[in-house]
Amino acid sequence: MKSLIDILDLTTQELDELIATAQDIIANPAKYATSCHGKKLATLFFEPSTRTRMSFEAAMYELGGNVISVTGAGTSSAAKGESVADTAKTVSCYTDIIAIRHPKEGAAYVTAKNATVPVINAGDGGHCHPTQTLADLLTIYREKGRLNNMTIGVCGDLKFGRTVHSLINAMSRYDNIKFILISPEELQVPTYVTKDVLEQKGIPYVQTTDLEAVMPELDILYMTRVQRERFFNEEDYLRLKDSYILNMDKLKNAKPDLSILHPLPRVNEISVAVDDDPRACYFKQVLNGKYMRMALILKLLKEAGQL
Amino acid sequence: MKSLIDILDLTTQELDELIATAQDIIANPAKYATSCHGKKLATLFFEPSTRTRMSFEAAMYELGGNVISVTGAGTSSAAKGESVADTAKTVSCYTDIIAIRHPKEGAAYVTAKNATVPVINAGDGGHCHPTQTLADLLTIYREKGRLNNMTIGVCGDLKFGRTVHSLINAMSRYDNIKFILISPEELQVPTYVTKDVLEQKGIPYVQTTDLEAVMPELDILYMTRVQRERFFNEEDYLRLKDSYILNMDKLKNAKPDLSILHPLPRVNEISVAVDDDPRACYFKQVLNGKYMRMALILKLLKEAGQL
Amino acid sequence: MKSLIDILDLTTQELDELIATAQDIIANPAKYATSCHGKKLATLFFEPSTRTRMSFEAAMYELGGNVISVTGAGTSSAAKGESVADTAKTVSCYTDIIAIRHPKEGAAYVTAKNATVPVINAGDGGHCHPTQTLADLLTIYREKGRLNNMTIGVCGDLKFGRTVHSLINAMSRYDNIKFILISPEELQVPTYVTKDVLEQKGIPYVQTTDLEAVMPELDILYMTRVQRERFFNEEDYLRLKDSYILNMDKLKNAKPDLSILHPLPRVNEISVAVDDDPRACYFKQVLNGKYMRMALILKLLKEAGQL
Repeated sequence: MKSLIDILDLTTQELDELIATAQDIIANPAKYATSCHGKKLATLFFEPSTRTRMSFEAAMYELGGNVISVTGAGTSSAAKGESVADTAKTVSCYTDIIAIRHPKEGAAYVTAKNATVPVINAGDGGHCHPTQTLADLLTIYREKGRLNNMTIGVCGDLKFGRTVHSLINAMSRYDNIKFILISPEELQVPTYVTKDVLEQKGIPYVQTTDLEAVMPELDILYMTRVQRERFFNEEDYLRLKDSYILNMDKLKNAKPDLSILHPLPRVNEISVAVDDDPRACYFKQVLNGKYMRMALILKLLKEAGQL
Repeated sequence: MKSLIDILDLTTQELDELIATAQDIIANPAKYATSCHGKKLATLFFEPSTRTRMSFEAAMYELGGNVISVTGAGTSSAAKGESVADTAKTVSCYTDIIAIRHPKEGAAYVTAKNATVPVINAGDGGHCHPTQTLADLLTIYREKGRLNNMTIGVCGDLKFGRTVHSLINAMSRYDNIKFILISPEELQVPTYVTKDVLEQKGIPYVQTTDLEAVMPELDILYMTRVQRERFFNEEDYLRLKDSYILNMDKLKNAKPDLSILHPLPRVNEISVAVDDDPRACYFKQVLNGKYMRMALILKLLKEAGQL
Repeated sequence: MKSLIDILDLTTQELDELIATAQDIIANPAKYATSCHGKKLATLFFEPSTRTRMSFEAAMYELGGNVISVTGAGTSSAAKGESVADTAKTVSCYTDIIAIRHPKEGAAYVTAKNATVPVINAGDGGHCHPTQTLADLLTIYREKGRLNNMTIGVCGDLKFGRTVHSLINAMSRYDNIKFILISPEELQVPTYVTKDVLEQKGIPYVQTTDLEAVMPELDILYMTRVQRERFFNEEDYLRLKDSYILNMDKLKNAKPDLSILHPLPRVNEISVAVDDDPRACYFKQVLNGKYMRMALILKLLKEAGQL
């Protein structure tokens, strides 16, 4: 049974195919409106993430399928002491595909090992969130017409931001990519990303604390939220959260075709004045996330022999 | 994008059209069974209101559409610091129409300003709850065959009861309406309703504390719940909550064609013995609420070019 | 209006018909894929039970119907003081059939008395859980090809385990059944089951504390979870919970065609090593529960004149 736990579970060819499917869905939605008729998606959310859950459910409905939604999953059988493995086996009796969100790293993997239906990791702790990365990739592709030959700035909390690590992993596979890593020193990308991914693959990167200084070089600027829940104390959070706020002034030396991405939700790290700038792509990214989840659901159900 | 935030957003003609549509839905449900096929309603409930949410979801299903249900919406992105405006933009990517319930006044308005799909206010704090008023209007219309020429008694908590204010606002538009406002002195209709609506429009009204004395005059008796959560202290609640309990004895001088309405849920302000009286209309009102929500969803999706 | 509150509400003939329908659903799922088109099931869960809720919702979707899901039902209208009777009348306006789970015994019965649509008891406190028993019966029937002529061992918490009492009640109707009741003395089957059911019907039974000693006799072994929430103090729970753990070693003298059932979720009362033994039927039981719920929904909607 093929599942998606980590973005690296997909080959570059598979990523390209998902992007192609998503593009076709966008062009011909009616063609897909009954693709998953009679199929059921379980959204099994052990921690709240309304945005991600809605995206999966919208995706399944636009494919003509149904959804069984389990929010606060931890309040039920799990609370009675049931193992993740048993939950996986049971939910497989009720649905054709599972999207699971869990606060513990590895929970999605254990679910996939025990389920008899495909499993999609919809976020497991600070670990992986591959469908966010699919949204990011489709957005870059649609904005630039390519996934190679570009300079990508990632800004904000690069230490705890799993979306950043996933994006770096995924984009590292394409040719002629340069990364500019913009963050306070306390929140730099961990060495298991810089050493083990970037340096090992010989991909050029720069680390800096100065967003404005590097702005003119960027083709993509990937902003991230400084998440309160990732900090060990409130003081550090308050001191750092406003360090890298993007506003129109900081954009004055940016390229005219810069694409600004953000995994959302944002707090205040992008000024709302930026929303009206044509370079702001973060709400397009939300839509693209839905299309990539549609493409992914189709792919996994097909490989499971269900479509 | 046309939305419904306050009952006064609708013209009298639009109200009449909604009533006509609802009547047609009741007469020919099969005609509407696939009207919203492929469309998605988001029920975005930041505070619990199972009854209202079920009514919206039943309405959408009876129109052949799908539903993405978000209860406890405040536990997710909003808790991470996301603005109502961003939530509105994001949810617009996932669904075709939004019903929002929020404890803060104005939240539905801000959502409508930022969403790219129609928004229905499903209750915002003590402010508005227009679809309840739509249910009330259809019930009056179906019971009486008219919306003019009648004496309407409203009884109970008239100070905090938003459904009462909304009903007065809506019925004030029709000819030859007289209001009898029955409440303890502490819970009288605010002057911004008596002065600014009733007196300005020259609509006759009486304020009284005595339900039985005015009973014989009434064509409509609109009972309301004394809501514990609207009181500042428990003592006042306990002293007043039982003041205006409707029972068969109080009905002995009522007109034979009186219609008794209540927005529900009731605690004990209407004795269950009244339920079997043909004048009790409050469960019919529940059904009528579903039909008016169907009519409203159809209207807003049509005006948004989605149907 | 026919509802299902207690397994004994169904005659033996009705049980047989439900099993026949479920068998036909399993053989010809496509035949039933639109049976409930346009119908709505409410899953009204006043306490969490994700597994049971998912089973009902999957059942309704596989019949082509829709679902309105109310989890944490107690947080809304009920919390505002609404009676179960009023909730029943209201939900009847929104849906065609109701599955209710409630922590209080009798709540499902009161709901059924007041609803105008069929009601299925999805568990009311320690009282009844008839659809679990339906799952058990179909599993026994599919594994053995019969419901008579067998020795059934029930093991674990037989005092508080409502599924056990229900199973004994249901199987007592078939010919030539013998029960072996295996539990610590503190958790024996109550006398209102042994005296009032088994002895009154002249059904042979044995009470023992020794699982291994009786293993060779069993055709069915029904294991149950020792539920922490049923104990009055933590000490008793800890002392007894591990008393009756089924592992491969204890199975060495079991019949080759033994069928092992468990209502799930399990904590550790069946070792995971047993899962791979062909005699383990508890995940099949999960699937069977879905099919019996499909058969039941069909039956009740038909009898209500809705299909």
